[in-house]
Amino acid sequence: MIATKDPAPSLFPNSRRIYVEGRHHPALRVPLREIALSETNHPDGRVEENAPVRVYDTSGPWGDPDFAGDVTNGLPALRRDWILARDDVEEYEGRQAKPQDDGYLSETHRAKSKDSSLILHPSSFASQKPLRALPGKTVTQLAYARQGIITPEMEFIALRENLGREEMARSARDKVGQGVPAEPSSSSRTHLQFQHPGENFGAATPEFITPEFVRDEVAAGRAIIPNNINHPESEPMIIGRNFLVKINANIGNSAVASSIEEEVEKMRWATKWGADTVMDLSTGKNIHATREWIIRNSPVPIGTVPIYQALEKINGVVEDLTWEIFRDTLIEQAEQGVDYFTIHAGVLLRYIPLTADRVTGIVSRGGSIMAKWCLTHHRESFLYDHWDDICDIMAAYDVSFSIGDGLRPGSIADANDEAQFAELKTQGELTTRAWEKGVQVMNEGPGHVPMHMIQENMEKQLDWCHQAPFYTLGPLTTDVAPGYDHITSGIGAAMIGWYGCAMLCYVTPKEHLGLPDRDDVREGVITYKIAAHAADLAKGHPAAQERDNAISKARFEFRWEDQFNLGLDPDRAREFHDATLPQDSAKTAHFCSMCGPTFCSMKITDEVREYAKKQNLTEEQALEEGMREKADEFKESGSELYS
Amino acid sequence: MIATKDPAPSLFPNSRRIYVEGRHHPALRVPLREIALSETNHPDGRVEENAPVRVYDTSGPWGDPDFAGDVTNGLPALRRDWILARDDVEEYEGRQAKPQDDGYLSETHRAKSKDSSLILHPSSFASQKPLRALPGKTVTQLAYARQGIITPEMEFIALRENLGREEMARSARDKVGQGVPAEPSSSSRTHLQFQHPGENFGAATPEFITPEFVRDEVAAGRAIIPNNINHPESEPMIIGRNFLVKINANIGNSAVASSIEEEVEKMRWATKWGADTVMDLSTGKNIHATREWIIRNSPVPIGTVPIYQALEKINGVVEDLTWEIFRDTLIEQAEQGVDYFTIHAGVLLRYIPLTADRVTGIVSRGGSIMAKWCLTHHRESFLYDHWDDICDIMAAYDVSFSIGDGLRPGSIADANDEAQFAELKTQGELTTRAWEKGVQVMNEGPGHVPMHMIQENMEKQLDWCHQAPFYTLGPLTTDVAPGYDHITSGIGAAMIGWYGCAMLCYVTPKEHLGLPDRDDVREGVITYKIAAHAADLAKGHPAAQERDNAISKARFEFRWEDQFNLGLDPDRAREFHDATLPQDSAKTAHFCSMCGPTFCSMKITDEVREYAKKQNLTEEQALEEGMREKADEFKESGSELYS
Repeated sequence: MIATKDPAPSLFPNSRRIYVEGRHHPALRVPLREIALSETNHPDGRVEENAPVRVYDTSGPWGDPDFAGDVTNGLPALRRDWILARDDVEEYEGRQAKPQDDGYLSETHRAKSKDSSLILHPSSFASQKPLRALPGKTVTQLAYARQGIITPEMEFIALRENLGREEMARSARDKVGQGVPAEPSSSSRTHLQFQHPGENFGAATPEFITPEFVRDEVAAGRAIIPNNINHPESEPMIIGRNFLVKINANIGNSAVASSIEEEVEKMRWATKWGADTVMDLSTGKNIHATREWIIRNSPVPIGTVPIYQALEKINGVVEDLTWEIFRDTLIEQAEQGVDYFTIHAGVLLRYIPLTADRVTGIVSRGGSIMAKWCLTHHRESFLYDHWDDICDIMAAYDVSFSIGDGLRPGSIADANDEAQFAELKTQGELTTRAWEKGVQVMNEGPGHVPMHMIQENMEKQLDWCHQAPFYTLGPLTTDVAPGYDHITSGIGAAMIGWYGCAMLCYVTPKEHLGLPDRDDVREGVITYKIAAHAADLAKGHPAAQERDNAISKARFEFRWEDQFNLGLDPDRAREFHDATLPQDSAKTAHFCSMCGPTFCSMKITDEVREYAKKQNLTEEQALEEGMREKADEFKESGSELYS
Repeated sequence: MIATKDPAPSLFPNSRRIYVEGRHHPALRVPLREIALSETNHPDGRVEENAPVRVYDTSGPWGDPDFAGDVTNGLPALRRDWILARDDVEEYEGRQAKPQDDGYLSETHRAKSKDSSLILHPSSFASQKPLRALPGKTVTQLAYARQGIITPEMEFIALRENLGREEMARSARDKVGQGVPAEPSSSSRTHLQFQHPGENFGAATPEFITPEFVRDEVAAGRAIIPNNINHPESEPMIIGRNFLVKINANIGNSAVASSIEEEVEKMRWATKWGADTVMDLSTGKNIHATREWIIRNSPVPIGTVPIYQALEKINGVVEDLTWEIFRDTLIEQAEQGVDYFTIHAGVLLRYIPLTADRVTGIVSRGGSIMAKWCLTHHRESFLYDHWDDICDIMAAYDVSFSIGDGLRPGSIADANDEAQFAELKTQGELTTRAWEKGVQVMNEGPGHVPMHMIQENMEKQLDWCHQAPFYTLGPLTTDVAPGYDHITSGIGAAMIGWYGCAMLCYVTPKEHLGLPDRDDVREGVITYKIAAHAADLAKGHPAAQERDNAISKARFEFRWEDQFNLGLDPDRAREFHDATLPQDSAKTAHFCSMCGPTFCSMKITDEVREYAKKQNLTEEQALEEGMREKADEFKESGSELYS
């Protein structure tokens, strides 16, 4: 366990934090991580610079070595001025905290906390009154987009999604004006720019993302910007299928494990490795206090499932849930700054019997709670009945919907069944109604689905939910590997990301078995970064392949440090390499322990390639002119271009 | 490191070895692993038996608790009598061992070996003269199949692929004859038998695999049975897209790491976890002795890349390779019992310049060796020129071809390029020529390929290589995650398996970084078992979903031990569960540490489901008749069906 006074998670090697500046909003500073590379020493003595690679950075100020804060202070309120400048919100006396907000704080949990001040409520953070929309105002990014407004959030996102490419292209154009060639003409530059055309199933990502494009996608409901006005610490990001595929990491304690400190550290750890949003799924005690600590320190949007806390407030007795308790919880969390709410309003009374013959019934916690409530009271879900009221609350704080899939399949056998698709149609209806109220929406999806049935999920969601962003858990492509469900689900996640899913909710190795720890969070996040990136590549996202090209070039040139540093997890790559060849000299060796020096194909092929290139051979020449004398030359030169 | 006198790798919990007997060949005993399950205690007091689940078992005698042998003796020669009974082979004085067969045995390697007798050559195994075909005979399974013969190997495979299903169905039919219902009528049986129809892209797996079907598939060249007559210890298995998807694990030392004992243990470890074949890719010294130890102890087919050893024989100087040295190596390895050879005969002189502009050139070791040889001598590859001679040797021992893909892409940028596909066409030509000689063939494939370009590989291979089985490495769907390439490639492997790839060559977490150790082998094998199984599910293989259904039922019923034991890695599942709830009582608890007792969706939904079932509700009834009074009943009964 990491003490809260600890510094930020370790930074990435050979990387620096850079900021791209806004044009519409010149005060904007959009963070990227720039990985510096070493140069290539060619056998002919030529030295080639390798341009640094800029990557999307979700770590917020924690990833900036110049940031001196710690978690007891929380992060700076980056967006507060932008929000106030719109002149459509008011500060007000928020809801009064109540003892049951933290459930009934247990001594067990108190004892688990190293620093008991952490779990005092209200928290130690500078108390700020909450903001909400002025009467008659809708303060959502969707409402602004519909009015044609480009908010700072939108421009921030455009710059972020471009990974500095637009900047680089502009700077290259400027140089042309000054007589400097726009692009070096060496073939390696061509390689690095090469990008396969993808298959995007109707997605439409432009070459460069403009603020206008962001606005139009949000206005159309095809993308959301989950940024509660009471979470000004968050850095804007976007979820939509015409943008980079995003991933979510679930954290949160349960009644039997973990503490506040651990959860805050999991959040920072998850965002270090690349989580785009974090869901706090705490279900134990201290729910309010845990969430406060997480939100005040989180640079990424935070999602929750409010029914969990509502249930804790009534001691876990599902039958006692009421709209009033749920409404109170929504306001509590909206004031605190939660950026999106999972609400299982699509679980209708008439769908519940459809799950009776399933192998695994209802596996969503929220879904099962609502099913039990509906059956007990024999009434339609209060979430469904009060949908318009819920929308009004969310519009006042710009909380986005993540409409839950309470009837998602929990096994291969139950995939794509009547219950699941009945709920999906209702998700579509709820989406339309939320849009009418100006609220941003994404839809949650499965679950456990064999590979050949994944695409149907994406197609039906796009159709029935009117192209609102899809946000899926996995899906897991088989049930038979507990302990490895990050992998069973990473396969499905990559595929559905390719088909058009906008955000992938990670699954850790502990799925089905226990609460993930810090190591599981890292393993889950990296697995899902792989899935999301593989999806971006397959879709042909214009920013995707540059990193692959750069790391492959480094690999081929035996620039070991560059290979490590360009990877998603430089620490592990280095550790694995050093397990067999720990010496520093091995970091410059033209082989590794897999093959040893004689059998290194990279080394041999490098010789071959240099030779073929020198001869400027084409296939036809090789065939028709013959190369006898050239072969002799190659032999005479020692057949080894690198001595 | 594990001493060679150690017992076999630990057995799986709650499992027993069973044998299914042959009908055509009554002496056949086909091993399966049967996982016993506990019973389900229903809330109404009913006790439900859960039928044991039979799974494919690659561990051979090492997985049979009654087997008393150890690795110094090698495994029993299971197939020797079958081979001799065909009356078409002769014993002969094999090739004389030479010092260079083991390279030039280094003191370093000798010192690494705990038991120096291991590396003495000839080995300590009972020396048996090698077998080869009598003059004029072709002793391949392909030749027998073409003659309409059903060999014991073919029947063994049919029984193995059915996982005992045919037996169970027959036994059920027999019981019907005796007035016993064929199937229990409870809905849980229906669940367990439920199987999604798959999407198989033209594959055609029958409901039950018969020996005749095996014969016909082998005769058509759509499947191979890689079983050298000099590896009688091997248990027959089949590679073809109308059968279960198989996986291969690569082991083998290199000049800078590992020892014989470690490699033998990796082989046993790999087959414990489910490797269907093992490739010994050793490139250091002691190549002959290492291979001898592996083959004599391996229950699965062993593949090699003979050019590696040929190159060691001439001290690593590529230019000095000759057909004579290569031929000598083929015979040496065929006599020893290697079941399939990877031979990179498709790397033609005229294709080499096509790799000059690649980001990563040639990344296949065999491919780069041959490219260098071709360029140096400016001659066509001696592998291509001597193809017919190679076929004659392989036909005499029934060694199968794995025609190498020496020009496979080593990066996303190089995927599906001209060089790769030029070679694939030549692989097709070589396939046809091998078939003319009666030799079994599969083709190797990539490599690094983004998701949207994977299917093209499968389609072209089926077309150009005339439906010979495809055997791919991954493919890796992105280059950016060194340290996690089992995952980047597991995604691609699952997909290409679904599209029709017959065998998936694993990639371990150490790929690109170092030689895999025992832990990496386990991680790689399990990842690829997941990929292969996900592919079987997606193809709709009739034996695939039973295990998923059984584990999901166990999960839903909180039969924790059954869930662990039905998983691909029971040890890890148990370990992860116990990390937060180690008490024995937690193994029967109706929750886990993920959610705690109140929030367990499984528990809640179980109550809901039992209730809905008791009411025999349909969607229409729920809608039209209302359930007010039923809801009251539910509440009155305490709303908790499990107290």
